[in-house]
Amino acid sequence: MRIAVDAMGGDYAPVEIVEGALETVKHLNADDSIILVGDEVRILEILGESSRWQNNISVVHAPEVIEMHDSPVDSLRKKPKNSIAIMAKLAKEGEADIVLSAGNTGACVASCQMRMRLLPEVQRPGIMVTFPTLAGPIILCDVGANVTPKASHLHQYGLMCDVYAREVLGTQNPTLGLINIGEEESKGTGLAKEVNQLFRADKSLNFIGNIEPRELLNKPADILVCDGFAGNIILKLTEGIAEAVFKFIGNEVALQKPELLPQFAPIVEQIYKKHDYSEYGGAPLLGVDGICIICHGNSDRRTIKNAILAALKHGRLNINEKIVARLAR
Amino acid sequence: MRIAVDAMGGDYAPVEIVEGALETVKHLNADDSIILVGDEVRILEILGESSRWQNNISVVHAPEVIEMHDSPVDSLRKKPKNSIAIMAKLAKEGEADIVLSAGNTGACVASCQMRMRLLPEVQRPGIMVTFPTLAGPIILCDVGANVTPKASHLHQYGLMCDVYAREVLGTQNPTLGLINIGEEESKGTGLAKEVNQLFRADKSLNFIGNIEPRELLNKPADILVCDGFAGNIILKLTEGIAEAVFKFIGNEVALQKPELLPQFAPIVEQIYKKHDYSEYGGAPLLGVDGICIICHGNSDRRTIKNAILAALKHGRLNINEKIVARLAR
Repeated sequence: MRIAVDAMGGDYAPVEIVEGALETVKHLNADDSIILVGDEVRILEILGESSRWQNNISVVHAPEVIEMHDSPVDSLRKKPKNSIAIMAKLAKEGEADIVLSAGNTGACVASCQMRMRLLPEVQRPGIMVTFPTLAGPIILCDVGANVTPKASHLHQYGLMCDVYAREVLGTQNPTLGLINIGEEESKGTGLAKEVNQLFRADKSLNFIGNIEPRELLNKPADILVCDGFAGNIILKLTEGIAEAVFKFIGNEVALQKPELLPQFAPIVEQIYKKHDYSEYGGAPLLGVDGICIICHGNSDRRTIKNAILAALKHGRLNINEKIVARLAR
Repeated sequence: MRIAVDAMGGDYAPVEIVEGALETVKHLNADDSIILVGDEVRILEILGESSRWQNNISVVHAPEVIEMHDSPVDSLRKKPKNSIAIMAKLAKEGEADIVLSAGNTGACVASCQMRMRLLPEVQRPGIMVTFPTLAGPIILCDVGANVTPKASHLHQYGLMCDVYAREVLGTQNPTLGLINIGEEESKGTGLAKEVNQLFRADKSLNFIGNIEPRELLNKPADILVCDGFAGNIILKLTEGIAEAVFKFIGNEVALQKPELLPQFAPIVEQIYKKHDYSEYGGAPLLGVDGICIICHGNSDRRTIKNAILAALKHGRLNINEKIVARLAR
């Protein structure tokens, strides 16, 4: 597998991205290779002496950089030679099997959709994240590719996630829930009601009904589907609230029983380790004709390494063939 | 002030509601009174001997009960004599100044909107919650009254919350943020972009831009506005994640250092006390011509007592007059 990695995308790019690639080298299969895409001079500077990497890493120059605040349109029209666009071009031309970026999500979605095109039958791509709960991993889609979807898009996300859960996570007959503001079918927006109907009617899915977000970390289903606006809010809020609660507790321990702090710190560390979402790698953009993996903007070298390895594993499974067969039914 | 309280609404109704009303009695002003609405026989049974309450509490019989799964239409058409509808009628006929329920939110919104009508200029009512963060209380609207709003509805929520923050919380020149999935004006749904424009153009508001939900508990603004679907998700997810994180930590402490548990428990208790949202009472349904307060379904007697007292304080401030003046500008 050849994986193109966006060396310029993310809060700690290019250093942490390039270092992440370097740390991956010793875990690669013989036929795996990494293509770092971005500012060639800076990348080579970080890569350092060639003996460490020359058999597994190559560099492709991209003279332009998409910033986090650039719009998807900028990435397509105003900066056509940005690292994401060049990765998508490599994929389209058969030079890369996978593209991976911790950069601007909108630009990734737009470039991959435009250049790599979608799988047959797929109407819109969706970003799927896997995150850990006390009861095991849960899949959530879409988390931001499609903020005003049609019901049929969400129906397809349910089908694609079902394939992913079976093939990648090994879940048999995965349960599917629809994020909504009440359990009753009559609750929510017109979109939510329509999707509820579509899921209910599709006997190939193990649909268990509407799920209230309160239940999220109790793993109410293997797969949860929602529109990209709500999904993005859920993803970011979960992160923010968890951080804030740890901070509340730390502050309170420091205030009431400062002598407990040294004992409390390793417990928190342990929790972070157990519920480390980087373990599941980046988030695949389901539905594109190829493999596009989107990483968290704050990815460090360890996260990038995990994401590259997870992406390669994903790539070897030929998920897309199975998605095409499933949607063709 | 005369406050009508739905004795039949909520997970612990009628016992906890009636007991909550009883506990409020000794805190009431001389001209305050509570009207308990619901199954008269059961309410009188719980109230017990009349010496405890007869000067401040009266009972109005409602022969029907709205269950949590009933639709708003049920509450209006199929069960016209339910406790919520009767409360709204009391308000409309000038028999009650405030209505308060921990029952079915959709039924409350529908009944109050239908019977009490809206304030002049108000297009749609919105539910506003106040909740605590490390940096002070934050206001969020709408959390579920209006799941597919127009931009002008959200603009009005911003104005009504601005009045509320100034008059009830005493915040000078409150900052206003729009919940969105990115800070840039170009981010989000068509609705979010349109509301961003309206807020930006309204110089009577101290609009500080889009706010990502990740920042919620850092109090990024005094007021946050969003559609009722996203707002309901934010409210319930925040609650669910916070609970889950405490559970994670408790489990990990029990696993790694069970001897710390007795010391950890009072710290958690202290945090819950400091960040107790019941301190701020129930959630007002802003925009109705009257005062409607919606409480959490899991309210116990203490929460109900706090909510009644907060509602009475709110009622004395004549917020509605100020909202009408503000919207008429």
